[in-house]
Order: sequence, then C-alpha cells, then structure tokens
Amino acid sequence: MKTPQQIFELMYNNDPFSKLLGMQLIAISEGHCKLEMKVTKDMLNGFSIAHGGITYSLADSALAFACNSRGIQSVSIETSINHLSKVIEGDILTATSEEKNLTGRTALYLINISNQNNQAVALFKGIVYRTGKEW
Amino acid sequence: MKTPQQIFELMYNNDPFSKLLGMQLIAISEGHCKLEMKVTKDMLNGFSIAHGGITYSLADSALAFACNSRGIQSVSIETSINHLSKVIEGDILTATSEEKNLTGRTALYLINISNQNNQAVALFKGIVYRTGKEW
Amino acid sequence: MKTPQQIFELMYNNDPFSKLLGMQLIAISEGHCKLEMKVTKDMLNGFSIAHGGITYSLADSALAFACNSRGIQSVSIETSINHLSKVIEGDILTATSEEKNLTGRTALYLINISNQNNQAVALFKGIVYRTGKEW
Amino acid sequence: MKTPQQIFELMYNNDPFSKLLGMQLIAISEGHCKLEMKVTKDMLNGFSIAHGGITYSLADSALAFACNSRGIQSVSIETSINHLSKVIEGDILTATSEEKNLTGRTALYLINISNQNNQAVALFKGIVYRTGKEW
Repeated sequence: MKTPQQIFELMYNNDPFSKLLGMQLIAISEGHCKLEMKVTKDMLNGFSIAHGGITYSLADSALAFACNSRGIQSVSIETSINHLSKVIEGDILTATSEEKNLTGRTALYLINISNQNNQAVALFKGIVYRTGKEW
Repeated sequence: MKTPQQIFELMYNNDPFSKLLGMQLIAISEGHCKLEMKVTKDMLNGFSIAHGGITYSLADSALAFACNSRGIQSVSIETSINHLSKVIEGDILTATSEEKNLTGRTALYLINISNQNNQAVALFKGIVYRTGKEW
Repeated sequence: MKTPQQIFELMYNNDPFSKLLGMQLIAISEGHCKLEMKVTKDMLNGFSIAHGGITYSLADSALAFACNSRGIQSVSIETSINHLSKVIEGDILTATSEEKNLTGRTALYLINISNQNNQAVALFKGIVYRTGKEW
Repeated sequence: MKTPQQIFELMYNNDPFSKLLGMQLIAISEGHCKLEMKVTKDMLNGFSIAHGGITYSLADSALAFACNSRGIQSVSIETSINHLSKVIEGDILTATSEEKNLTGRTALYLINISNQNNQAVALFKGIVYRTGKEW
C-alpha cells in the first residue's frame, strides 16, 4: 500500500493545473493536506481581486490530496465555497484540510483558506465518493 | 446607465484569469450570460481529467457577468458546484446562466455547464450580494 | 419490482413526520415526485413566518420519494436550500422535483417550492447515494 | 440594546415550531447558541430514522438564535446540511454554533449536531443577511 506522500506525488506529478497555479505542498498525511500558493497578477478578475476560481482551485486540490491520501481513489461529489475576505495580488494563501466525517463510501472535509496575516479568506466544504479502488 | 455589453467589457478587459483560461462570450443580456471555453492540457488534474477548478472558474465568471449585467455591482456570497460527468482535454464547455431569484440585496443563479455533445458536466449554484453601487 | 406508487406507500405509511406536517402526494413516477402541504400556525418561527425547517422538510420528503421511486434504496448525502420569499400561515406549498443527474451510485435533484400564487419560495438541491439495495 | 437572552426569549416565545419539536436552550451569548432536543417517534421517516427535516430544523433554529443574538435582525440566505450518522428515536441531539465570519451585511455559521454519545450526526452551514434593523 502506498504512503500519503507517494500518492500525493503520483497525483501532483500529473496535475498540470495545480502546477500552473504554483501550488506547493506543506504537509500530507492520512486524511490531511496543507497547501500553499502565491496570488499572481494572472489570477485576478475584473474587480482586481483574485478570481473566485483561484481559492476554489486551491481548496479543491487540497481536498483531492487529503481524501486520496487514505489509499482509496476518491472523487468529489459536491463542493461549496464561501468567499470571506478579499484576496489580492501578492497574497500567500494556505489551505488546510479538516476531515469531518469518514465512512466506507463517502467522506466530508472542510478546507480553511487563510492569507499571510492568518486571516480567513474562504471556507470550502467538499463531499467525496470513495470508489473502493486502491491507489 | 451602462449596457450589459459595456459592463461585460469593463469587467472582462480587466480579468486576466478569465482570459488566461480562454473564456469567450457567447451572449450577454440583463441577468443572463453564456460563455464558452476549450479544455486544454494545462487544465487537467492527476486523474487526467479537467481539474474541478476549471468548470468552477467558468461558472463563476458566468455568474459574475450575469449578475453584474443588471447594472449594480454584485459579489458572490456562496457558490457550490456538482461535477456530473468527466471533462477531458479538447472538450468545448458552455456555461449558461439561469436567474432563479432577484431581490434588492441578493440574487440567486444556476449555471449549467455542458460539453460539445450537449451533455451536462456540472451544475453550479451561486448567491450574490448586490452592493447597491452602480456600474 | 415495485412500482413508484408502491414504494411511495411503503415509505409514506411509515413516515410519521411527513404525516404530522400534512404532506399530500400529488404525483409520483420514476425519478419524480410532487407534494403539497398547507402551512399552519404551528409551523411558524419567531418572525411569524414559516420556520426554515418547514420548506426544508417538504423538499427533503419530495427528494426521498423521487429518488427512491427508481426502485433502489437511496439516502441523502448533501442537501442545501435557499429561502426566496416569505412563507406565511395559510400558504399552500407545492414541491416539484427535477432530476438533474443519475449515475449508478449517486443522483442529483432540484426541488422547486412554490406557493398558491405560483411564486417561488425556496430552491432545494439534494445529492443522494444509491445503496444498490432494491425496494 | 437588548441582551442575547432577551432576544432569544422574544424569538422563542413566538416560535411555535421550535416549541413543537421540544427544543431547549442550553446556552446563548453574542454570536453563539447551543440547543438540545429529544428525538420522538413523531420525528421519524420511512426508514425508521429521524426525518432529515429534524436535524435541519434544530440547526436552523440554532443559526437564527446565534446570529440574531448580536442585536441585528438577521435572516438566512443559504443553508446546507450533511447527514453523517443515523438519528433514531430516543436520541438527544445537541446543536452547537460556530461563527466563522462576520461582516456588516452577512455572517457565516457552522452548526455541529451531535448525539448523547458525542457522535457527530450532522454538519450544517448557514449564511445570513444582516438587515441592519435592531432588535
């Protein structure tokens, strides 16, 4: 059985979008993942703040790495995000997962995203389906 | 008062992330927006399908253009997405907005995302706060 | 294999809460359900409007009947509701299901709730897990 | 300005549905509320477990008391719930609020619902609109 670190590397090495956005792994363990990302000019929207897809993408990657790290291939069923504070160019975002529930077939995670001042900028909730197929 | 097309241009011309992903406007009118985007290799994740952030970003842009086209600056409060079918490299995605509710301070939209075969690939729901400030 | 009507009866006859709230079946077929309910004084909250749990409960029952009517025992994974207009004593609410997606293991439904004036009062979204066990 | 306890009493004394379900106040303070409720036979559904509307209603009441306790009349915009474990007749449910974000116009709460064995049975998320009108 593969370790969380091995599964992360298998996933991340084939994940051009997470790389394109510059996501960096801070920590990975069973059911848990912490990622970091710097907000660049390319990530802004028409209000000169980060596009909603930026925090979502970071959280969605953290979700994928957190749930798959348990060794069972898992895919997201439903995800939601609340944008809490503005994210601007130069911000360093950290996504930290919290496993709220784990059953045979589904699991529920919260992903908290905060900036370099430790201010919450988004709260993400994700439900995943665990396919049963091992990594 | 600005037209929906004028507001769209003001927003889109300052939106590097929507441009980076290659989003194209198909239609814009009061409370409604339709966007199109081609899925490229850069947009994939570790399962060789489109990263969840891709369909989310397309839907989130469609939401922003749809609600702001009513002439009042509006920001998203809560958004959720369900991924319904796999999205792969080369797919042409279309996001179509549906305004489900409009009050003085908030509005609710569904965004349906389908592929070139007219197959639904994601359903997105967004609630926005209408700031009262005119464009 | 049981019919949608038979499954509905098996469920409803053992569902004291749906009965307590006075839910009435209007239509049932594979993947679809329509329910009606009158709002009584008992269902109000501290703002003298219907408690949020009232429209939620009606929608949740409609979801349960709609998805189980396909002959496979199904349970809800995630549900969300947006309250769009005030619901007051005496209102007649109708919940109508719309099946947005159906796969082997999960399904997604929207439930529209409207009042006697055909005004939308709530939009509900539900994702269910299909256990594979037949009714 | 009224205290959280005074606002709770004003709301609860005019809230027949929360009373009908037997909700009891455990604690109330600014931005926080804790409620308790016993699951009775009347609250079950066709699977002989508590109807989804039961945990939702408890959480929705906890949300309403928590956000209004800040002295500003507030109404829910969007709420979602995940059912995590079965709830059966005789269970004692406790709903505990957690304020995740507070701005001038909106606020975000998580409500954790657990049973008498301290097992999580549901996670509820609610976004409220703060009308600006004082209690």
